[in-house]
Amino acid sequence: MDSQKIADELSAVRSCHPLVHHITNTVTINDCANITLCTGAAPVMAAALEEAGEMAAMAGALVLNIGTLSSAQVESMLIAGKAANACGIPIILDPVGAGATAMRTEACERLLAELNIAVLKGNAGEIGVLAGAGGEVRGVDSAGCAGDLAAVAAACARKYGTVVVMTGPEDYISDGERTFVVGNGNPLMARLSGTGCMTASVVGAFAAAGTDLVVSSVAACAAFGRAGERAAAQARGPYSFRTALFDEMANLMEEDLAAHADVKKADTI
Amino acid sequence: MDSQKIADELSAVRSCHPLVHHITNTVTINDCANITLCTGAAPVMAAALEEAGEMAAMAGALVLNIGTLSSAQVESMLIAGKAANACGIPIILDPVGAGATAMRTEACERLLAELNIAVLKGNAGEIGVLAGAGGEVRGVDSAGCAGDLAAVAAACARKYGTVVVMTGPEDYISDGERTFVVGNGNPLMARLSGTGCMTASVVGAFAAAGTDLVVSSVAACAAFGRAGERAAAQARGPYSFRTALFDEMANLMEEDLAAHADVKKADTI
Amino acid sequence: MDSQKIADELSAVRSCHPLVHHITNTVTINDCANITLCTGAAPVMAAALEEAGEMAAMAGALVLNIGTLSSAQVESMLIAGKAANACGIPIILDPVGAGATAMRTEACERLLAELNIAVLKGNAGEIGVLAGAGGEVRGVDSAGCAGDLAAVAAACARKYGTVVVMTGPEDYISDGERTFVVGNGNPLMARLSGTGCMTASVVGAFAAAGTDLVVSSVAACAAFGRAGERAAAQARGPYSFRTALFDEMANLMEEDLAAHADVKKADTI
Repeated sequence: MDSQKIADELSAVRSCHPLVHHITNTVTINDCANITLCTGAAPVMAAALEEAGEMAAMAGALVLNIGTLSSAQVESMLIAGKAANACGIPIILDPVGAGATAMRTEACERLLAELNIAVLKGNAGEIGVLAGAGGEVRGVDSAGCAGDLAAVAAACARKYGTVVVMTGPEDYISDGERTFVVGNGNPLMARLSGTGCMTASVVGAFAAAGTDLVVSSVAACAAFGRAGERAAAQARGPYSFRTALFDEMANLMEEDLAAHADVKKADTI
Repeated sequence: MDSQKIADELSAVRSCHPLVHHITNTVTINDCANITLCTGAAPVMAAALEEAGEMAAMAGALVLNIGTLSSAQVESMLIAGKAANACGIPIILDPVGAGATAMRTEACERLLAELNIAVLKGNAGEIGVLAGAGGEVRGVDSAGCAGDLAAVAAACARKYGTVVVMTGPEDYISDGERTFVVGNGNPLMARLSGTGCMTASVVGAFAAAGTDLVVSSVAACAAFGRAGERAAAQARGPYSFRTALFDEMANLMEEDLAAHADVKKADTI
Repeated sequence: MDSQKIADELSAVRSCHPLVHHITNTVTINDCANITLCTGAAPVMAAALEEAGEMAAMAGALVLNIGTLSSAQVESMLIAGKAANACGIPIILDPVGAGATAMRTEACERLLAELNIAVLKGNAGEIGVLAGAGGEVRGVDSAGCAGDLAAVAAACARKYGTVVVMTGPEDYISDGERTFVVGNGNPLMARLSGTGCMTASVVGAFAAAGTDLVVSSVAACAAFGRAGERAAAQARGPYSFRTALFDEMANLMEEDLAAHADVKKADTI
């Protein structure tokens, strides 16, 4: 994929400044709000049944994250999701901990069945579980996934008719036909709570501003990963890394992203 | 307003170390707790119906913020608010996103009708909506307000019989008769989630320690804005700004505030 | 207690990388997740009735914190706690604000009666209230405790048949027979929201990896306090202290802890 195209996706987010509605967990909700702002978009969080749909209908993207789900929250997600679908607003689903408990796996399957999900973003364990490809999840962390990761991402995308973003040391983005691998990022991102959730927010901001969900998702992963690379150079540990990660996302230059985006077409056999 | 008077309000917070009870949103609740501490007060958050009133009755101020409201939370706010009113404890209402959804606007109107709100603190869009003066709100951000801002703040104060704090590049504080404009602050404050919510916590701490709600609210805005000015000088982006903002609020010297408070009487026509 | 033994407890956490399940408050939930990661363990938060027990059963420790409790959350804690007890998984209870409201005191008494709590970690006011020894609590802060603190900690441990960790300028750890005092720490820890909650997470991580709950709790307090000492040397205020605290916890060397752990046997009369 052309690096300039990736940088152009970042420019698009910053010029259209989309509203990104979240129904998300209480652990990383502040991180999601701030990374959305640093990406150049505007966050809003509204989960009450009475307003979830109304807020979704005015947003540019809707991010659903089941990190601390409840049965009431799943109902809010369905209301907001149906409103988003009715308006053609892309929905990003982050299936946090799918495979760890029955409730989480079932909630994801229900959301994937009843809503038109634009992008499903999870770690290798979560995507492997949902693909039926032998993923393993421990708490909210991936405990691995059997088989070729690019192939699992592509199979999962075909199974659900969605774009899949499978995060990890390398990120795999696939719509079932086109599959890309993004190499940007730094191991410190895994030592901080919330980087997975933040990826979904960034993917949401890019989805709201872009036109091709594979391209926008690749660009989102490359941009966030590139911010992580730049932040790691300044970090003395996970928390000074965190400060630098938000700063670098806000300051990321299109020229820097065009020069350093590490994106390849994946060989899915 | 005399600058020394403003600095004295900060001294009063630090010597009486008031307890500030919050019923607030899940996005910025940690920011509110920490800025309350950095201001020199003690935060507590307790929203359960069973204890919201009991906790409010022992506090020096009560901050209500509808950023992620639910119908159950509105009930808690009414219980806590009635307990605060019965004890003469000032209530600060932050009408986050009023005007964006019907639920938010209606919740604010109900809280303003059933409780005696001491200070209503919102952005120009929110205050404009509640004043019936053509405010516009997108998500939780102001999308502008028609007319002269000082006049809208004063009209809103008269309509609800409260002190209004309208935040923005300049903050307008009015009780309907006296109106002041505070120029302290920095544009980085708008690039960070939660600075509006934090303003309400700071206003609450100052209200608990002060005697005149216009004076204490002016001082709160000047102090928090001055901390923002000092923090901006050290920031490389929104998150290093955030670290510096809390540090500077904790370290703010009364002498510095007296020398740099930028407060004028507003001309409300 | 032998300093090398304390350092060995830290090594044990890092090699077994235990999963620490939390049902906790919305104020400091992110701090708890990140300090768990920085300690070398893996955090998970899951409070839904449908999954709280299932998640607890796969964890190495369960941390219950009533900082923003609701009646529904107490039910989740009982479900998760019974699952943990059935599997022999240690439960850490943080009785935030016990004594401040009737609901908090009663919730703690119920959790202590119906569950087998391994470690009860609170400030002097909270432990004093639960021990029936004249503790006082203002909001969520200790307002003091009559009598000798080591003796109160030991009496509370005997009353509930648990290990007690009483935090403050000095931490007292007791099982009713053995009582230790840990001198590590820095006054900046009290100027930041969440350091008490984080202590419970660290105690949970150490409990999951250790074999003797007194030893593991002493080591947890010494390690976290030592990180605080190192962080204070770099801080310009409470928030730069916070950044450094997480970094230092992640970077803490076993050698440094062995050299600087300040642990003594307490004289409980």
